[in-house]
Amino acid sequence: MSGAGAAARSLAGRAAELDAADPLRSSRDAFVLDDARVYLDGNSLGALPKAVSARLRDVVEREWGELGIRSWSESGWWSAPERIGDRIAPLLGAAAGQVVVADSTSVNVFKAVVAAVRMAGEDAVRGAGEDAVRGAGEERDEILVDASTFPSDGYVARSAARLTGHRVVPVEPGEVPAALSGRTAAVLLNHVDFRTGRLHDLPGLTAAVHEAGAYAVWDLCHSAGALPVGLDAHGVDLAVGCTYKFLNGGPGSPAFLYVREEHQRRFDSPLPGWNSHVEPFGMEPEYEAAVGAARGRVGTPDILSMLALESALDVWDGVPVEAVREKSLALTDFFLECVAAYVPEGAVESVTPAAHAERGSQIALRCEDAGKVMERLIARGVVGDYRPPDVLRFGFTPLYVGFADAERAAAVLADAIGARPA
Amino acid sequence: MSGAGAAARSLAGRAAELDAADPLRSSRDAFVLDDARVYLDGNSLGALPKAVSARLRDVVEREWGELGIRSWSESGWWSAPERIGDRIAPLLGAAAGQVVVADSTSVNVFKAVVAAVRMAGEDAVRGAGEDAVRGAGEERDEILVDASTFPSDGYVARSAARLTGHRVVPVEPGEVPAALSGRTAAVLLNHVDFRTGRLHDLPGLTAAVHEAGAYAVWDLCHSAGALPVGLDAHGVDLAVGCTYKFLNGGPGSPAFLYVREEHQRRFDSPLPGWNSHVEPFGMEPEYEAAVGAARGRVGTPDILSMLALESALDVWDGVPVEAVREKSLALTDFFLECVAAYVPEGAVESVTPAAHAERGSQIALRCEDAGKVMERLIARGVVGDYRPPDVLRFGFTPLYVGFADAERAAAVLADAIGARPA
Repeated sequence: MSGAGAAARSLAGRAAELDAADPLRSSRDAFVLDDARVYLDGNSLGALPKAVSARLRDVVEREWGELGIRSWSESGWWSAPERIGDRIAPLLGAAAGQVVVADSTSVNVFKAVVAAVRMAGEDAVRGAGEDAVRGAGEERDEILVDASTFPSDGYVARSAARLTGHRVVPVEPGEVPAALSGRTAAVLLNHVDFRTGRLHDLPGLTAAVHEAGAYAVWDLCHSAGALPVGLDAHGVDLAVGCTYKFLNGGPGSPAFLYVREEHQRRFDSPLPGWNSHVEPFGMEPEYEAAVGAARGRVGTPDILSMLALESALDVWDGVPVEAVREKSLALTDFFLECVAAYVPEGAVESVTPAAHAERGSQIALRCEDAGKVMERLIARGVVGDYRPPDVLRFGFTPLYVGFADAERAAAVLADAIGARPA
Repeated sequence: MSGAGAAARSLAGRAAELDAADPLRSSRDAFVLDDARVYLDGNSLGALPKAVSARLRDVVEREWGELGIRSWSESGWWSAPERIGDRIAPLLGAAAGQVVVADSTSVNVFKAVVAAVRMAGEDAVRGAGEDAVRGAGEERDEILVDASTFPSDGYVARSAARLTGHRVVPVEPGEVPAALSGRTAAVLLNHVDFRTGRLHDLPGLTAAVHEAGAYAVWDLCHSAGALPVGLDAHGVDLAVGCTYKFLNGGPGSPAFLYVREEHQRRFDSPLPGWNSHVEPFGMEPEYEAAVGAARGRVGTPDILSMLALESALDVWDGVPVEAVREKSLALTDFFLECVAAYVPEGAVESVTPAAHAERGSQIALRCEDAGKVMERLIARGVVGDYRPPDVLRFGFTPLYVGFADAERAAAVLADAIGARPA
């Protein structure tokens, strides 16, 4: 018997024990999953919760087909963006009334960045004195943007800068404290890097941004539903994120926008559609913004996608995000241990930090021919994804991924890059 | 026998004859409708096409649940915005490759208005000479906006103006030719007024806008699927519209954006999300816009709502929009005739023009206590809607509304305002 074979049996045994002791194990039953596959792409598209199909059928056949327009009030369609926002809020560490579900993440980045620089501009005008606020008296013409951001955020931030007379300064998140100055209006950062899975220091960076008199906008696409975010506790000003990754809302389900309560009356949206009017059915020619989270809405909400998301959120009933985080770290630790045991040294290199404080809920491995390796993995039933130029991404969604899945994925990876574990 | 009773019997007889001769009559079978009700609110939320529920179930259970992320390519999710745009295009008189389905109408108004004023600004910079274009050399700082527009368009246009250094000038559509000048950058108009149902002169006004060297942006919410629009033939620059009224896409189904082919390379979106990048999966930090209609995309498309819309569009197979228009005019004529016969003179006043060239596919009647009257109508099975302060709206969707429906609606209206027809 080879040493590798013994290692595999030992890790497989450990996996079984860990799965047996997993308090989240039963959550998996709420999802449609093919047991022949290991699904590690929940950081791209979350798996289908079982309840969604029947709920959507009811929305279509009864709420639309039978009740028709009455459903805007009677079936709660109109209030869905705020109601579903309040379902997501606890997962982000936000009290009710601050999160709204609407539009795409990119559109919400636009709203948030424009609103942030407008608040900074307002602070500057207010100047010093009794009303003194953060950035009083400064000329703030810079928006710092995570240099390794998901590209869309950067594109949209540059558009916001162009339209509001600011300039974008690309900065690695770790360098943000040094780059902050009296010229900084806003800072747009990713909580977890989409490529490397690195978790950035949201509390520390937000505090630094505030100390410089600027506003912090966080993109939570890869942390919402994966780990505690603590928006309220850490004083985050604005945040956006998608709902189709760790929140399992379905392909292209609408994104969310968080506007801290104390900023809501100053939130000056560049997309003031009728849904954000204080009296949307008054059909007034003059715009007067709604109070509260509804101010982040724009046009008519896409009800089918939105109510599928609402149904998907039921899997979170009774599941604290802290428990999800604990399992996520255990899973990714265990996956890295299996990779170290099975894959010959040097064949892959983790670009995800080993330190828990710097790790999201995915493991990104750099390897040669990553695109081809991922094709082989998928053909062998391990579904991750590939991000150019050389990164394999494996997302671990603790609600439905187990330790045996992690062990199997590592074994198949070793196989796919040409080294069998036994 | 009273004269009113005879009139009712005569009109009911005419209705039966008209229905029997209606070439679109069988289209109704494609929809889920309650025969006990007359549904005249398709100008707010179109009825449910029967095929949608099964299609959506397949999208959820097979495409999302089984195929998962593979569906982005294998199930055609990624290309849905352009593919569905091409399905809508013929109804708008547009050749393929110019319409994309994305976001809400309000968000698309923002894209279109900003892009229009940017083109006007570019024209001004190019100046006279060999490259001379429309507005060469002028300082164009005005955006003319339909003064009676659906409010959201006005709010969003003012936001676009504020962000681009323009000012909004509210103008009644009929007054646009007189208001145009060398200062006009763009004009935002509604094809059909949401409140009165008045159809505006798209060919004539577009020509006038062009003569003044400006760009025409049309909102087609109340004409798409109700009448021929002729975007290509009339030289419209940009257009937007919703898909949940006469296109029956479902509550909040995504809107469309038309960018005339000759403008596509100059279409400079204020919302340049990754979906509009020439290589969206290249994850490049620098933005380079896609060629073609995809340039109007922003973030990840909401697939469930979008594919429900695609399925809903099947009811148009073999149905020319010209036939829909012909029936729409006959229906609204007949409804007005029935109202004149049944409702005592002076009790209601049509604010929809009698002239066919000025009428969309709804009839708006002003009456006292309109809100209460509509409640009574709905209680008696005639579903229209109410728009403050005093307008009853009755939308006629020729695909599923017949002449007997129109007759019954007029009779119930007479009843609801206290005058029985017999």
